[in-house]
Amino acid sequence: MVILGDLVARLGCEPGSADLAIELDSIAPLGRAGSRDLAFVSEARYLDALEDCRAGCVILKPEWQDGCPVPSICMDDPYLAYAKVSGLFEPLAPPSAGIHPSAVIDPTATVPDSVSIGPGAFVDAGAVLGEGVTLGHGASVGRGAQLGANCRLWPGVVIYHDVILGDDCVVHANTVIGADGFGFAKRADGWEKISQLGSVRIGNRVDIGASVTIDRGALDDTLVADDVIIDDQVHIAHNCVIGRRSALAGCVGMAGSTEVGEDCTFAGQVGVSGHLKICDNVHFTGQARVIKNIREPGSYSSGTPLEPTKQWRRNAVRFGQLDALQRRVVKLEAKLSALDEAVSDDD
Amino acid sequence: MVILGDLVARLGCEPGSADLAIELDSIAPLGRAGSRDLAFVSEARYLDALEDCRAGCVILKPEWQDGCPVPSICMDDPYLAYAKVSGLFEPLAPPSAGIHPSAVIDPTATVPDSVSIGPGAFVDAGAVLGEGVTLGHGASVGRGAQLGANCRLWPGVVIYHDVILGDDCVVHANTVIGADGFGFAKRADGWEKISQLGSVRIGNRVDIGASVTIDRGALDDTLVADDVIIDDQVHIAHNCVIGRRSALAGCVGMAGSTEVGEDCTFAGQVGVSGHLKICDNVHFTGQARVIKNIREPGSYSSGTPLEPTKQWRRNAVRFGQLDALQRRVVKLEAKLSALDEAVSDDD
Amino acid sequence: MVILGDLVARLGCEPGSADLAIELDSIAPLGRAGSRDLAFVSEARYLDALEDCRAGCVILKPEWQDGCPVPSICMDDPYLAYAKVSGLFEPLAPPSAGIHPSAVIDPTATVPDSVSIGPGAFVDAGAVLGEGVTLGHGASVGRGAQLGANCRLWPGVVIYHDVILGDDCVVHANTVIGADGFGFAKRADGWEKISQLGSVRIGNRVDIGASVTIDRGALDDTLVADDVIIDDQVHIAHNCVIGRRSALAGCVGMAGSTEVGEDCTFAGQVGVSGHLKICDNVHFTGQARVIKNIREPGSYSSGTPLEPTKQWRRNAVRFGQLDALQRRVVKLEAKLSALDEAVSDDD
Repeated sequence: MVILGDLVARLGCEPGSADLAIELDSIAPLGRAGSRDLAFVSEARYLDALEDCRAGCVILKPEWQDGCPVPSICMDDPYLAYAKVSGLFEPLAPPSAGIHPSAVIDPTATVPDSVSIGPGAFVDAGAVLGEGVTLGHGASVGRGAQLGANCRLWPGVVIYHDVILGDDCVVHANTVIGADGFGFAKRADGWEKISQLGSVRIGNRVDIGASVTIDRGALDDTLVADDVIIDDQVHIAHNCVIGRRSALAGCVGMAGSTEVGEDCTFAGQVGVSGHLKICDNVHFTGQARVIKNIREPGSYSSGTPLEPTKQWRRNAVRFGQLDALQRRVVKLEAKLSALDEAVSDDD
Repeated sequence: MVILGDLVARLGCEPGSADLAIELDSIAPLGRAGSRDLAFVSEARYLDALEDCRAGCVILKPEWQDGCPVPSICMDDPYLAYAKVSGLFEPLAPPSAGIHPSAVIDPTATVPDSVSIGPGAFVDAGAVLGEGVTLGHGASVGRGAQLGANCRLWPGVVIYHDVILGDDCVVHANTVIGADGFGFAKRADGWEKISQLGSVRIGNRVDIGASVTIDRGALDDTLVADDVIIDDQVHIAHNCVIGRRSALAGCVGMAGSTEVGEDCTFAGQVGVSGHLKICDNVHFTGQARVIKNIREPGSYSSGTPLEPTKQWRRNAVRFGQLDALQRRVVKLEAKLSALDEAVSDDD
Repeated sequence: MVILGDLVARLGCEPGSADLAIELDSIAPLGRAGSRDLAFVSEARYLDALEDCRAGCVILKPEWQDGCPVPSICMDDPYLAYAKVSGLFEPLAPPSAGIHPSAVIDPTATVPDSVSIGPGAFVDAGAVLGEGVTLGHGASVGRGAQLGANCRLWPGVVIYHDVILGDDCVVHANTVIGADGFGFAKRADGWEKISQLGSVRIGNRVDIGASVTIDRGALDDTLVADDVIIDDQVHIAHNCVIGRRSALAGCVGMAGSTEVGEDCTFAGQVGVSGHLKICDNVHFTGQARVIKNIREPGSYSSGTPLEPTKQWRRNAVRFGQLDALQRRVVKLEAKLSALDEAVSDDD
């Protein structure tokens, strides 16, 4: 249960006319919020629903307050305000303090008293955990790896040897950081493995989803800067560099040695070739196929529109004839010009 | 070893002329099936191979029975019949009964005697396991999560707190259900995490592959209805709703809040944007890029055909000039019409 | 620390003029290599940087030796030479010998003294480990599975029952080998599960990344031949056959029963339909959509180029009109020919 006063304190805003003693149990979408729910309006198109709102309190923009039938709090960015208070309603109990007896901690590891280490977790030789680190059930911290203060690894996360995470990182279940990069030299009879001598360095406040893979570098380290957010199933290959505050949505795949600037966003399933440079403030739409350097900020896309399969098949066949079609049009233009001239001459 | 009589009983069909005492050890493709193998013919194009068949018994359609040189069982849908009896030949021994001493079960969890819990598995506080639940080695069931009767989690599966699975679900190794959805609000200096207050609810008889991720909802729950089947490496983002009997093949990625109807099928690597509505009975072919609502049942596709890279490059360049080409054709048409008229006028 | 003499011995090459006593600590890129670093030049375009090189030793082609200001070793393939010696600089300590007391080994499993088994790992009944096998923390070896000599499973790897790996395989963290293939027969009211009675057989010297899934076969086994290399997040469905020395980059997805020849390479996110045959020596560029058999070696691609989104949208719309455009051009050609003839006749 959250009291509106606490919420207002968290936001550092004026309470307006709302009663600071209002009790709220949870956050709910505007349409179904009841008297013990907090709601919010982030876009003008939802204002119609505000009339019938029965929420205990609504966060909205100052200019929308007049039509609001229930207590409200005004914020210039209601969505950001919702984000900031959402943690107050988190039902999740804090992880158990201390080290579960079934966890295995190498005696040479550095493990402060403030950690929470779940059943079956493993901290290998020389690893260093910061204050307040939480390791979920079965999480694995390799030899010499370092986790900054308040990092939380959910169950099954594997941090390889010598990987470094900054402070306040979250890594969701079964993500793997520091596996070998995909480096092999071709021999006549197979592949010669290239030892991946680099590691992975992750900045502060990096949030990483579930089943992500971030590989260790071949010679230098793979780098993920501060405040980067990474969704589930993303793959970041060896020696990539991801700039601050960039965001990678689900299933993005990035090949080796690509450098991404700051404040870039990658929608789902974007694929990025290796050895590219992407400047700051670039956005890629879903499934974009990035195979060249990007030097101008902006939004980039590739692919074809979704169509009924029957219709798509006809158009797709034509794609395979596109160069020929272009040349036919060029020929037509020439022929038509010649004819036009001939006719004009005749006149 | 399976006796034909048991197989006929499982199918609830007429034995025909086949000897119910026939012993079968396994199921094999028609071409290599021997006298102790069961085979099946599901499509007419395989009938040629039937002539030389040496299987102990063949499942086929009634109209194909005449040409069959070995004992046969007639079923209208031989492929479905094969599926139904395939479990009889499963070599897998049942999991060990009881709770392995290395598993960790919180005393407040509800765990019936009929469960099988493997080494190193963990059942957190308040979790509820149904009758006959199987947890593989190292599987993790979070605080307050609920697994219906006969659910089977293979090794390394992570079920987050408060996630609910119905009865008879299968979840393959290292899949993660209930990790935080990818919800952040943009701040000037980074991202404000939005606590994911919803959970995930999975229906009955849902079959989920390995390394799948299904994220918990932001406010409401992410929902997967009864009888849905999900292949490996699929990603389902927060607040998606997947309708009954829909099937998602490998590596499908679905962004947040998309609602999928019943009986839809997604081929491999399909990517679906967020906040879409897909009606019932929609099929997407592989790698389709779904970025709009679908209101008509049917098959949908996107992408271009595979070509030799040299040829593809020429056509791909032309794609980038497609709008210009279209305008050139429009201009040609106008010019030609004008010329045509001029010539006609001349006549 | 590596002495140049050891490095020369590993390569089996002539030391040239370099002092065999030179001490090297690591490998570094040409640009930042110092006096205790090894560097290499693999392509002529990097020769400019050689002039200012301060490395302790450089591996290069014989014809490049003259301009080199530091000690050098000549090899025809410097990149392969770098790969071969990279392991000498591996900082990773060998895994602890023996079986960690928290590991669970079924008494019917075959486990030689030479293995290294980490905390919480599990070897189920009847499984057979070869000499020198390493199992990381929490790795899982299912009933009757077999691992050849010197296989290394990193933490959290799950090997299902009866799966077979040859000698000298590496499997990175949280990869799953042998989960059920995605096999279901459609019933009126849902899906009938097809028991996956086959297994997975992996050859020798196969290198598999993190979070990979390779499913067990429906009737026959899924096969991965010797010397195949597989990057992170790859999905290989049931009954696929991957030929020797083929390489699959990150996030490749392959549907069931497809057979890939030898020496094929798949760039990232390539998607392959089921039941295809791909001949030897085929290369697919990133995100290629492979939906037909490939009978000719060579490079294949699909997709459209990356464009600014605004421009892309215009071209993408035109893609949906491509068949119509083609027909308009055909009509134009006919009309122009007719007009041309008419005009000529007039003359």
